[in-house]
Amino acid sequence: MALYVQKFGGTSVGTTERINAVADRVKRFRDEGHDIVVVVSAMSGETNRLVGLANEIMEQPVPREMDVLLSTGEQVTIALLSMALIKRGIDARSYTGAQACIRTDSAYTKARIQNIDEEAIRGDLQKGRVVVVAGFQGLDGEGSITTLGRGGSDTTAVALAAALKADECQIYTDVDGVYTTDPRVVDSARRLDKITFEEMIEMASLGSKILQIRSVEFAGKYRVPLRVLSSFTEGPGTLITLDDEEVMEQPLVSGIAFNRDEAKLTVAGVSDTPGIALRILKPVSDANIEVDMILQNVGADNRTDFTFTVHRNDYARAKQIIEQASRELDVRAITGDTKIAKVSIVGVGMRSHAGVATTMFECLSKEGINIQMISTSEIKISVVIDEKYLELAVRALHGTFGLDQVEVAQQVV
Amino acid sequence: MALYVQKFGGTSVGTTERINAVADRVKRFRDEGHDIVVVVSAMSGETNRLVGLANEIMEQPVPREMDVLLSTGEQVTIALLSMALIKRGIDARSYTGAQACIRTDSAYTKARIQNIDEEAIRGDLQKGRVVVVAGFQGLDGEGSITTLGRGGSDTTAVALAAALKADECQIYTDVDGVYTTDPRVVDSARRLDKITFEEMIEMASLGSKILQIRSVEFAGKYRVPLRVLSSFTEGPGTLITLDDEEVMEQPLVSGIAFNRDEAKLTVAGVSDTPGIALRILKPVSDANIEVDMILQNVGADNRTDFTFTVHRNDYARAKQIIEQASRELDVRAITGDTKIAKVSIVGVGMRSHAGVATTMFECLSKEGINIQMISTSEIKISVVIDEKYLELAVRALHGTFGLDQVEVAQQVV
Repeated sequence: MALYVQKFGGTSVGTTERINAVADRVKRFRDEGHDIVVVVSAMSGETNRLVGLANEIMEQPVPREMDVLLSTGEQVTIALLSMALIKRGIDARSYTGAQACIRTDSAYTKARIQNIDEEAIRGDLQKGRVVVVAGFQGLDGEGSITTLGRGGSDTTAVALAAALKADECQIYTDVDGVYTTDPRVVDSARRLDKITFEEMIEMASLGSKILQIRSVEFAGKYRVPLRVLSSFTEGPGTLITLDDEEVMEQPLVSGIAFNRDEAKLTVAGVSDTPGIALRILKPVSDANIEVDMILQNVGADNRTDFTFTVHRNDYARAKQIIEQASRELDVRAITGDTKIAKVSIVGVGMRSHAGVATTMFECLSKEGINIQMISTSEIKISVVIDEKYLELAVRALHGTFGLDQVEVAQQVV
Repeated sequence: MALYVQKFGGTSVGTTERINAVADRVKRFRDEGHDIVVVVSAMSGETNRLVGLANEIMEQPVPREMDVLLSTGEQVTIALLSMALIKRGIDARSYTGAQACIRTDSAYTKARIQNIDEEAIRGDLQKGRVVVVAGFQGLDGEGSITTLGRGGSDTTAVALAAALKADECQIYTDVDGVYTTDPRVVDSARRLDKITFEEMIEMASLGSKILQIRSVEFAGKYRVPLRVLSSFTEGPGTLITLDDEEVMEQPLVSGIAFNRDEAKLTVAGVSDTPGIALRILKPVSDANIEVDMILQNVGADNRTDFTFTVHRNDYARAKQIIEQASRELDVRAITGDTKIAKVSIVGVGMRSHAGVATTMFECLSKEGINIQMISTSEIKISVVIDEKYLELAVRALHGTFGLDQVEVAQQVV
């Protein structure tokens, strides 16, 4: 008899038929004697419909009212799912964010949870009820409705699991777990039984968009065991855990993440003086353009090349800004490239093993792939390469680090 | 500088274009310096869409969850209207039923308002804000969302007007006021400038479905001046007032209501003994069929004819029930007729003037219209006639009581 918080996203509750399927699944857990809190998102398409209505009124909708509007999406789902559960003979009760006492700050459309008064929910659980909570929403100190931003339902689920000290927070998605890499690119990609929070964060931020990164950080901070499973198939999914004490037994690399969303800009032949990075990047960040990798090489003749990457959608704007800013600087040239890809190897095993980078670079070199940029963190090494080599690089690295071998998979667990 | 509560129904806010038009109208009042509280319904079609979703899950949706579901309809409208007002430079703020502290009992889907804590709204009005409140919904003692039933937005508006001691509660609809009778039947039907609450209640319950009858009773009880106006055209509408002290100046008849929704059933030649009405009608009311008019004549030979009317949709079921019940009674025949119409003249002037009934009967007789049933109240006389004479009867009575004369109209005011 455990307490599970189960979160179902928009696709999983996209139709009344799917809501019925979710109710069947919750009933199976309930029949086994477990206590269940369900967190749901808006039915897929609903949020976009509401955003569309708001945009018919004004281009930049007022954030406070936008949250009043958007929060109706999950409210519809909690009512429908509660009905579906009650129809199956399960005593269920819906909670809006306000009713679940999910207190947030007042940063409308991107609020952060401050605390949860879980007393009412606990009372219903003790009465044997299944509690159905609207994800993504809360109430600020003034009693105004807030939303946590897209994907915020994951955060709601994790926060509730933390407040209720749940045995597991289960995130049901349209994939059946976290993979060593994207199975669409590498046939032999395997589902991981276990992954650490740190690795998951690196994987998520690098483009394996299964979980909202904030919810993973939250789960790590409050030590909530998190499991990613499929809504549509059976299976154990992937457990995201804290136990990287067993790091010695961990493989070097747990997974390979990649993305093609970035573009790079190089300011070549700039004078190598203090403050030069700031003078180049400040106008970019002032324009609210996010910079990912930044690279500056030791130069010759007091000259250096300065390179950074931005989201591909921001490339044109960033280039224009840099061109304007560099009129006051003495630069040789400004060049850029949108046809790049970033490939990263992630694994807590790197911490205690040297030579991982060497193995990575050797592997890419053997395939004739030129590395344009490198950046590293404690448990991750990222390289930027020509976009056309992306699949080749991912497949080669996947093999080199033994990720397609089942033996390694079991070693992970 | 007055305080107005303005209610806009589903048709008036049915599209974002119409919501913009409502915002324009509210702005005009605001620009004149008035304080405004707006109450809105769900966009037309939205409630039906939500009911449809619930019915896909279960035929008889759980009432508590139904209210969670339906209340999202008005929540969408308050957000969109607040945005439209803010876009016009008006400081506006939306309130759900819960946020407006509209406390109700727990009779889900048909809750009744118990009290309103208007402090927060008053605070916003003092800050110069326009307050936009979701109609039709409230919160019960347990913090669960409730709805007041279809048309409940009118009740919300009146209750808020009472709590805030508003100068007027304005109900915007798709008609420009209350008419002496249906203009589709009588060309010369006139808009009334004023009508008393009692008259309005009789008119409403008799089929002039402009206002929800509960809201009119509520307004009468709390002495809230109520005005019915059009959302789509300009004009003073009809004011519903308490001042029937000036009854001497009132015309005999203020309006003519009618409906064709009823059917009559006659149990002929039943023994005229105590308790017979009960024995005939109890099985009907046990089947939840509402009975409107009941008529029993003095009979001969200890036999009497007993006639009553029900809604036309209930006719077949009521007839079957009566046929079964009368097996144990000694009756001559059971007959029925669905081709009937009820025509009523309404007016507080009747109270102090004799002979109104005579004038009515004389008028119908002159047109060769046979009266099948008669029922009277203090300010109303209803007759049941053959359906085919309905238009003729209404037109004749409209003329006879001088309702098409402007002079009389001014006398009303």
